[in-house]
Amino acid sequence: MSVYRNRLLTPGPVELHPKALEALSRPQLHHRTDEARAFFQAAREGLKQAWNTEGEVLLLTGSGTLAMEALVLNLFAPGERVWVPVHGKFSERWAEIAESLGLEVVRKDLEWGRVVKPEMVEELSGPFHGALLTHSESSTGAQNDVRTLAQTFKSRFPNALVVADMVTSLLISPVALEAWGIDAAASGSQKGTMCPPGLGYAALSPRALERLKPRGYYMNLAKERKAQAEGESAWTPAINLVAAVAGVLGQVLPGLEEHLRLKARQTELLYRAGESVGLKPVPEVKSPATTCFYLPEGFRYAQVKEAFARRGATIIGGQGILKGKIFRISLMGYSDIYDAYAVAELMKDALQSLG
Amino acid sequence: MSVYRNRLLTPGPVELHPKALEALSRPQLHHRTDEARAFFQAAREGLKQAWNTEGEVLLLTGSGTLAMEALVLNLFAPGERVWVPVHGKFSERWAEIAESLGLEVVRKDLEWGRVVKPEMVEELSGPFHGALLTHSESSTGAQNDVRTLAQTFKSRFPNALVVADMVTSLLISPVALEAWGIDAAASGSQKGTMCPPGLGYAALSPRALERLKPRGYYMNLAKERKAQAEGESAWTPAINLVAAVAGVLGQVLPGLEEHLRLKARQTELLYRAGESVGLKPVPEVKSPATTCFYLPEGFRYAQVKEAFARRGATIIGGQGILKGKIFRISLMGYSDIYDAYAVAELMKDALQSLG
Repeated sequence: MSVYRNRLLTPGPVELHPKALEALSRPQLHHRTDEARAFFQAAREGLKQAWNTEGEVLLLTGSGTLAMEALVLNLFAPGERVWVPVHGKFSERWAEIAESLGLEVVRKDLEWGRVVKPEMVEELSGPFHGALLTHSESSTGAQNDVRTLAQTFKSRFPNALVVADMVTSLLISPVALEAWGIDAAASGSQKGTMCPPGLGYAALSPRALERLKPRGYYMNLAKERKAQAEGESAWTPAINLVAAVAGVLGQVLPGLEEHLRLKARQTELLYRAGESVGLKPVPEVKSPATTCFYLPEGFRYAQVKEAFARRGATIIGGQGILKGKIFRISLMGYSDIYDAYAVAELMKDALQSLG
Repeated sequence: MSVYRNRLLTPGPVELHPKALEALSRPQLHHRTDEARAFFQAAREGLKQAWNTEGEVLLLTGSGTLAMEALVLNLFAPGERVWVPVHGKFSERWAEIAESLGLEVVRKDLEWGRVVKPEMVEELSGPFHGALLTHSESSTGAQNDVRTLAQTFKSRFPNALVVADMVTSLLISPVALEAWGIDAAASGSQKGTMCPPGLGYAALSPRALERLKPRGYYMNLAKERKAQAEGESAWTPAINLVAAVAGVLGQVLPGLEEHLRLKARQTELLYRAGESVGLKPVPEVKSPATTCFYLPEGFRYAQVKEAFARRGATIIGGQGILKGKIFRISLMGYSDIYDAYAVAELMKDALQSLG
């Protein structure tokens, strides 16, 4: 028996919203019933509002990666040329997906932790069919100004489509589609919506909807769109999660601005606490989704992880080339500002215990 | 307030096993932790045992359709020739998937409700790279003898791969891979495993594992296999469901033979009750997964559905060409033999109330 309570501080999955747990403890619902259709429509409408789009949001049973692949598959054809700045594990995923689907990928490799600059768009020579951007790069904790990037890209390549990974920015940072020049975006249930993993979200602006080229079978977004207009889905959906998402959105959306301010303040507080004990932040520009620090000099990740674990906290290390070099903590899940104070103290204790 | 309790009698999703609800009400787990890896391995081992295979079972976050598409994608190349007997909505799905992936589909269309006969294999002229069969065709309630079909097909085309939809036979009817000449099979969490929808299962015999051609990104089974060997997954998994599946399998597998006998007895009882009030069964050979009857003469599906609904029961109608012609009820979910007696009485009451 520990004197500490368990805290899940990973950048997804996250601590569940009580409305999610409530929905998940209900008896099984059949997806082709009026009750299920009402949940489906509520989740779709809520996500549309969260994304500030007049287009629509499709709920796919799968991970955020499925939603990313489905967007590339249905919005681009093999041989089309896309720009993909790579500065972490998730921006690299865009490049891998586009390559696997036969697109011509023009990669811009940056040091992991850095952000993409509008000047990098100015340097490009066309033509381009699209750009695949990453809003919050959870592997480094960096946040790109995708609004400026999208607008700069569109001013140079007006016919191109800009698609953004908003997996860890939806309901964490302000986001928008049309108003920002972003045509489509992806996210998933286990991040800002504070539900278990299992749903990917594919958001499409009216412009992206017009340009949809139905392709694939399970990932065919035109087929999904038709089914989801009726509150159903092309394939058996993770309907329990859909109900959970609807429940959480019903709580979060009425106070969204305050919620986003909370996420920003929590992350600021965690960075301040880490810096106060000598830690060095990884990102050039900080995302409110994940706090990323380089490991304190002379310590291995396993030691840092263990120091948190002794205090009941689950954190995560680096991915790809940052493996063994950084650690990451997140309060994307259900938490308030006082939880941030708690975690800040816990982090300081954990690090000071290492000496 | 109704005097009836709610009963979900659809052929998936189904009434949840209490071990599933128990797992789903726990706080969120991170998938890259020892606890999560233990659930992942337990679910994989349990499914391997359920499928009687020395190969392996991959858990995919998505529906059973995703697992079906992933199998076709990773086991066949475009242009390869496959035999697909079509006798319902789900066998037709195999044909659609194979066509969408560029395979040459040799279709054998049967009346919906009929089963595939070994003679139909004898009539084929090769070459064939594979056959896509359906064990339990839930849209008609028919069960194919996929064992005899696979063995007949293999005796004629020894190099071909036989892939079976076992979505509603796994843990409902006896199933096997190698011993039956079946190389790969698909199922999903919301059927015999009595969990919510959201996981597809892809079972691969040792022979199929040798023939795996890694393709796709989200559906790349070679990548999944590598990750799942370590108790993880290539993409963020629906880990809550994985834990639920592990919990249910731990309860069901030790008494599997008795469980399968129960499913057979339940269905027999429901057919007997329906026939006693003059209903005509749809399938030529009955699957224990779903009881399918033609609508009583002179009544519309909405009336039958309403008669069940008034007694708290959710049933489902026909799909595709059987829409408006049949109704289906299932006890695949958590239920015992006395529940079958209860549902039999409910069905008789519902139908007699129609006059």
